[in-house]
Amino acid sequence: MYPKTVKKLIEIFSEFPGIGEKSATRFVFFLLKQKKYFLKELIENLINLETKVKACPFCKKSTEKELLCEICENPARDLTKLCLVLKEQDLEVIEKSGIFPGLYFILNEVSSPSQKEMEKINIEEIRERIKNPKKFGVFGNFKEIILAFDFTVKGRALSIYIENKLKDLPVKISKLAMGIPSGGELEYSDEETLKSAFEKRG
Amino acid sequence: MYPKTVKKLIEIFSEFPGIGEKSATRFVFFLLKQKKYFLKELIENLINLETKVKACPFCKKSTEKELLCEICENPARDLTKLCLVLKEQDLEVIEKSGIFPGLYFILNEVSSPSQKEMEKINIEEIRERIKNPKKFGVFGNFKEIILAFDFTVKGRALSIYIENKLKDLPVKISKLAMGIPSGGELEYSDEETLKSAFEKRG
Amino acid sequence: MYPKTVKKLIEIFSEFPGIGEKSATRFVFFLLKQKKYFLKELIENLINLETKVKACPFCKKSTEKELLCEICENPARDLTKLCLVLKEQDLEVIEKSGIFPGLYFILNEVSSPSQKEMEKINIEEIRERIKNPKKFGVFGNFKEIILAFDFTVKGRALSIYIENKLKDLPVKISKLAMGIPSGGELEYSDEETLKSAFEKRG
Amino acid sequence: MYPKTVKKLIEIFSEFPGIGEKSATRFVFFLLKQKKYFLKELIENLINLETKVKACPFCKKSTEKELLCEICENPARDLTKLCLVLKEQDLEVIEKSGIFPGLYFILNEVSSPSQKEMEKINIEEIRERIKNPKKFGVFGNFKEIILAFDFTVKGRALSIYIENKLKDLPVKISKLAMGIPSGGELEYSDEETLKSAFEKRG
Repeated sequence: MYPKTVKKLIEIFSEFPGIGEKSATRFVFFLLKQKKYFLKELIENLINLETKVKACPFCKKSTEKELLCEICENPARDLTKLCLVLKEQDLEVIEKSGIFPGLYFILNEVSSPSQKEMEKINIEEIRERIKNPKKFGVFGNFKEIILAFDFTVKGRALSIYIENKLKDLPVKISKLAMGIPSGGELEYSDEETLKSAFEKRG
Repeated sequence: MYPKTVKKLIEIFSEFPGIGEKSATRFVFFLLKQKKYFLKELIENLINLETKVKACPFCKKSTEKELLCEICENPARDLTKLCLVLKEQDLEVIEKSGIFPGLYFILNEVSSPSQKEMEKINIEEIRERIKNPKKFGVFGNFKEIILAFDFTVKGRALSIYIENKLKDLPVKISKLAMGIPSGGELEYSDEETLKSAFEKRG
Repeated sequence: MYPKTVKKLIEIFSEFPGIGEKSATRFVFFLLKQKKYFLKELIENLINLETKVKACPFCKKSTEKELLCEICENPARDLTKLCLVLKEQDLEVIEKSGIFPGLYFILNEVSSPSQKEMEKINIEEIRERIKNPKKFGVFGNFKEIILAFDFTVKGRALSIYIENKLKDLPVKISKLAMGIPSGGELEYSDEETLKSAFEKRG
Repeated sequence: MYPKTVKKLIEIFSEFPGIGEKSATRFVFFLLKQKKYFLKELIENLINLETKVKACPFCKKSTEKELLCEICENPARDLTKLCLVLKEQDLEVIEKSGIFPGLYFILNEVSSPSQKEMEKINIEEIRERIKNPKKFGVFGNFKEIILAFDFTVKGRALSIYIENKLKDLPVKISKLAMGIPSGGELEYSDEETLKSAFEKRG
C-alpha cells in the first residue's frame, strides 16, 4: 500500500540494529515531514561516509585523515601500551574517560563465543602490530597489551583465546578489573563479581 | 574523537524519533560495516524519497503516482464514506484490516490536545473535501464522516473539536467504538472502557 | 544461612503470584523491621481470613456475611441480568464502574484454554443458578446472561464453550464489546480490534 | 465492596516493599484459593517470626539461637577481619560466595545519603565491636575493617562518613573494588567504573 520507495526504505531501516518495522516506518514518515534541508543533509553525509571515511591502517578506527588517525599519529601517546578493543565505540568510551594514554587496535567483531567465530579473529594482524608497528607507520615499542573486552561470555572467551595466541610474545598481557560498577548493589551482584571485588579490595 | 562525518551522522540519526545518541552511533558503525551495496541503496532510496514521493492532492497519502493515489483513483471504493485519520500509518493499518471500503483524508498531526494546537488543523481543507471533492478530482458524495482517531487525550480532544466544526454539514459523523481490545483483561481495564464495553455488548 | 523460620517464610512468599526469591526475602526483612504492631495485625487478619471469610452461596464472592453477600441480598439489584466473571477482581472492577445493575456469578478459574481445562468449569452450577436461583435464596428471573470474560485466548475460548453449553436455555447471551480502549492508538491496534471498532462505530 | 478482612489485608500487603494495590489484591485471593494448609503454615511461621527470631547481639543478623548466631559463634572464622554491611541480604550474598572468612556487623539502614541520615548510624556501636568485641562474647582481634557497601550514592556517602569516624582506630579500613561486573559491557560503563577497571587491571 505504501509507495515503492517508502516500502523499500522501511525494509532498509528495518535492518538497522534494534529497529523493527514500526520504528522503520516512523523513520520514513519523519523524513517526509522534515524540512527538505534535513533530508538533503542526511543524504550528503551518507555520501561522505561512503567516499571519505576509511579505516586507519594501524588501529582500524574510522578516520577522514589521509594516513594514520589522530590517535596513531599523535607523538604524545604512550607507545609502550596497546589496548585491544572489540569495536570503535569501546575505544571512544575509553578515550572519553582519559584513563588510557597508549595506542589501540580494533579487532573485527565476532558474533558468538564459539571456537569457529573466535578463529575469524585475524591473530596475525594483532601480532604484526605488536611485533612490527613500524610497518604501519607507528613507532610503537609495546611492553603491555591490555585486553579491554566486555565481561560477557563472548568477551571473556575472546580474552582467553587471544591471551593464549599472544603468550609467546615478550609483552605483559593484562585485563581490566572485574568489580562492582558505580551504582551497583551487593544484593544484585553475582558471586564472581563479588569475589573479584573482595580480592581486589583496598 | 569520531571523524566529522561520523559525528554529523550521529547528530542527524539522534533526531530520528525514539533514537538516542547510543543507537545513532550504532547506526553509523552498522552502515560502515555493511557491504557498499547497502549504503548505496539507502542513499538512492533517500534521493527517490526527496524527488519522487509526493502527497496525494485529495487524501494527502504519500504516493509516487502522477495525480491521485491508488486509493483515491480506485472506482471500486465506496464514495459515500470518508475516514479522517491523523497519520498515514493509521490509514495503513485500517487498509490492511480490509474493514473500510471508503476514502480517507490525513490531517496534519497536532502535537498536543491544547486549543492552540487544535487550531492548526485546517478545517477548511476538510470541509472542502466533503463539500466539493470534485475540485480534487474525486467523485465522492460523502454521507458519513468517520473520525478514526486514537483514544488518547489528544485524539479525543481532536474528535470533539472536529465534530463541532463539521456539525453544520449534511453528513453523519461517527466515531470508532471504545471497548476491550483483543488480548485485553477486565482487571486492567479502566472504568470508561468497561462502561463502553458493557453498553455496546451484544 | 538464614534462620529456619526466615527460610520457611521466604519459601512461602515465593509461592505468592509474581513473587521471586529476592522479593520474598525483602518481605521477611521488611516484617522484621516493622513495629511489632504491624506483624501482629497481619497475623490477626490472616486468622480472620481463615475463619471468617467464606464464599457467598449464590455468586461465590468472598463475604463475611452469614448468608448471601451484600450484592445478592440487595433487593434493588436488577434480577433479570446475570453477569458471569472469571474471578472476584473482575466483579470488583465492574462494580466500581457502576455500569452493571444485575447479579454475578464467579466461575472457578481455568488455567489454560484447553478443552480439558474448560471441562473443569462446572456448567451445572451455572445452569442451576439461571434456572433455579431460589434454591440459593435469590429471587432472580434472568433474561440476559452477560459473559464478561477477558479478551485473551483463554477468556475467548471460555466464552465460546459456555455460550454453547447454555444455548438451550431461554435467555439472551451477550458479550462485552471489543474495541479500542481508552488511551489506545490505532497504530498499535490489531486487525480484529480495529474491525470491531469500525463495525460498532456510532 | 470486598469484605472487611480482605480490604484490611490488601491494605497491609500494599505496604510490603514494591507491592501495589493490584498485587496485594492478588495475594489475598491467592491465599483464599490455596488449600487451608498453606494459610495455616504462613500464620504459624509469622508467629514464629514474631516470637523466636531475634538479632544476634554482636552482628545483628537474624537468628533463632540463644546467644550468638552461627557465624559469630564459629571458632573457625578469621577473627582479624570485620566486614560492615548495610543489610542482612548483603551478608547473605557474601556468605554464599564463600569469599570472606571473617565476622560481620550489620548497620541499621539509612534511607538517604544526607548528613542527617548518616548521623543515625550509631558509630559507637561499630567502635565498640572493633575495640571490645569480648563484651559481646566474641573473641575478635580485628586488624582490617571492610566496608562492603553498595556503590550507590548512598552507599558511597556512607563509606566516606564511616571511614572518617573510624580513622583513629589502629585498623586498616578497606573497600571493595570498583570494576566492570561479570556480564558488563564497556560501551555501557560509566567513566568512573572504567577508570577503576583500568587502574586495577592485571
